[in-house]
Amino acid sequence: MTAAGVITLMTSTAGRADDEGSPIDGVKIPAGYREWKTIAVNQLLVPGKTDQLRAQLGNDIAFKAFKDGTLPFPDGAVIVALHWTRVPSEYNNQVLAGAFPDAQSFVVGSRVNMQIMVKDSKKYAATGGWGFGDFKDGKPGDEALHKTCFPCHEPAKDRDFVFTHYAQ
Amino acid sequence: MTAAGVITLMTSTAGRADDEGSPIDGVKIPAGYREWKTIAVNQLLVPGKTDQLRAQLGNDIAFKAFKDGTLPFPDGAVIVALHWTRVPSEYNNQVLAGAFPDAQSFVVGSRVNMQIMVKDSKKYAATGGWGFGDFKDGKPGDEALHKTCFPCHEPAKDRDFVFTHYAQ
Repeated sequence: MTAAGVITLMTSTAGRADDEGSPIDGVKIPAGYREWKTIAVNQLLVPGKTDQLRAQLGNDIAFKAFKDGTLPFPDGAVIVALHWTRVPSEYNNQVLAGAFPDAQSFVVGSRVNMQIMVKDSKKYAATGGWGFGDFKDGKPGDEALHKTCFPCHEPAKDRDFVFTHYAQ
Repeated sequence: MTAAGVITLMTSTAGRADDEGSPIDGVKIPAGYREWKTIAVNQLLVPGKTDQLRAQLGNDIAFKAFKDGTLPFPDGAVIVALHWTRVPSEYNNQVLAGAFPDAQSFVVGSRVNMQIMVKDSKKYAATGGWGFGDFKDGKPGDEALHKTCFPCHEPAKDRDFVFTHYAQ
């Protein structure tokens, strides 16, 4: 390969959002995560700050553990939490208005961020066996943000530090 | 097989929820649907009637069409919409309270129903190429309920009668 070819390749690779790992744990956005299975959905409202619809997806190891109620999660389990703005759907509301004049349909707007948890009981032994990543527009947040991940999840120790339950 | 064996098998098979098709279209609950890919999530609130968190899952044909923006949907596309009650999570709120005292976390409660759309442009030509099924606790609703499916979806003709958009 020529020097120019190497430079082009490097530039191209560096431009991929999923190449950059999170501070502290080095967690990366996993390839193909958007096609993972649905663990659950939820909503988070912090008045004046954020209003989100969310979905938690799992790789096969994580999904099976959720479904079977296996705790702690086995090594290799990866959970991605997709967070979108919650916005009213005027379109849906107009359609529903015939039957339900006061119906309120809310759908996802834009992506706020995504959070990733990777189980590796040896590598991440200091933080309950989990590595954390928080990404916005494909880029990880800073170290200060990532220092908040484990302390927030720590109260859920009896659920192996995971808040989400499997949605039957 | 003995007669007793046949009866046991028939009873066992009849007991499976996914054996009963919907009125009119004969749509059944597809095997393995809970492991399908996530198309989108949303919320529906009809004050005094229902308050739901929802997820739309698709088989591979449907998911690809959503992701690529393909319209109309190809034959074989199947969409399942899972509807749960939306309930506050006191557990999550307590954990969040340290950082966000007025945070409100809502999670899924019990399953309200599931709705299924099956694309077969010939079989279901009279209803935009879609067959419909609405199931509660694994049992299809009655014919009167199923007569409301297509009229409700008809306003979305320009989106091939589908309300859901792919959540990026």
